[in-house]
Amino acid sequence: MNLHAALIHYPIINKRKDIVCTSVTNLDIHDFGRIATTYGLQRVWIVHPYEGQKRFVRRVLKHWRDGWGGTYNPRRKESLTRIELTDDIASMTLEIERLYGETPVLVGTSAQRTINTVEYSEVRRWLHEKPDRPTCIVFGTGWGMHEEAMEQFDYMLPPIDGPTQWNHLSVRAAAAIIMDRLAAPER
Amino acid sequence: MNLHAALIHYPIINKRKDIVCTSVTNLDIHDFGRIATTYGLQRVWIVHPYEGQKRFVRRVLKHWRDGWGGTYNPRRKESLTRIELTDDIASMTLEIERLYGETPVLVGTSAQRTINTVEYSEVRRWLHEKPDRPTCIVFGTGWGMHEEAMEQFDYMLPPIDGPTQWNHLSVRAAAAIIMDRLAAPER
Repeated sequence: MNLHAALIHYPIINKRKDIVCTSVTNLDIHDFGRIATTYGLQRVWIVHPYEGQKRFVRRVLKHWRDGWGGTYNPRRKESLTRIELTDDIASMTLEIERLYGETPVLVGTSAQRTINTVEYSEVRRWLHEKPDRPTCIVFGTGWGMHEEAMEQFDYMLPPIDGPTQWNHLSVRAAAAIIMDRLAAPER
Repeated sequence: MNLHAALIHYPIINKRKDIVCTSVTNLDIHDFGRIATTYGLQRVWIVHPYEGQKRFVRRVLKHWRDGWGGTYNPRRKESLTRIELTDDIASMTLEIERLYGETPVLVGTSAQRTINTVEYSEVRRWLHEKPDRPTCIVFGTGWGMHEEAMEQFDYMLPPIDGPTQWNHLSVRAAAAIIMDRLAAPER
């Protein structure tokens, strides 16, 4: 299984459907790292165009990877080893290709039904049948990714379907559920 | 389905296995509320013995339920309607019994294998077959619940099993995955 997750901070839409750039949430770095370590992901890509925000992420990572945090809590250190920083989806794609020798399949996520949907079971199947081919599941922040981002994806996963019509999970919760659906052992 | 979640802040163990009381994390209130609304839970019980911490939770809830937050983001308002505050597991049990006419089945969660395990599929089955009987899934904070808390549970769910040996998810992520396993429609 060659599975990745990406967390996009631009181009994002806000409540009024303007294109915006969101700030990095410290807890998302940790939660994504912990989910990735549990489910055996290769890398988590924090995608942000701004140097100031990347500097913030580097500072958090340094504290836990090399600083006092890693001594205090070695599990947390381990969970942050696979976090990477990148400017945009195109740079991430190139970097994955450089590292793994193949262009990743990009699979977007959304709380809305979209076109070009691939079922969870289908992604799960190909992850096991083609264990070397990189697949990256892409998550938006804010009120979701702008369509300019979505146009770059090969497929889209269907929205997470509870028994209700309400589906406004946090991106942390959505990522946890999706990785469990894709990568947990058969029960 | 009469499903509840509880988030326990005492008695919790810390890294050195002392019994401690943890602080409430603001983001957990939101994430648990959003997970509960997505998966059709009846209530989320924030269990904390200290008045100061309960006052903090009430302030957060007031902002989103009655204050400016609810006007700004009505979805968030809706997701926080089912949050309840209670002192301890015994009071919660009595309150669920008062509200629903039956003592809840308490099902604990842990990152360790324990005795008295019930499979996810079994809880899922009884939730559908006995839709009126309340079931409460209980989550710990910190380094997990002290055994004094665990002794009160009827059953324990097995730890969340990724394809790796590492299982130190945040409680938010664990709750999202467990509710998806128990309450998502059949795929």
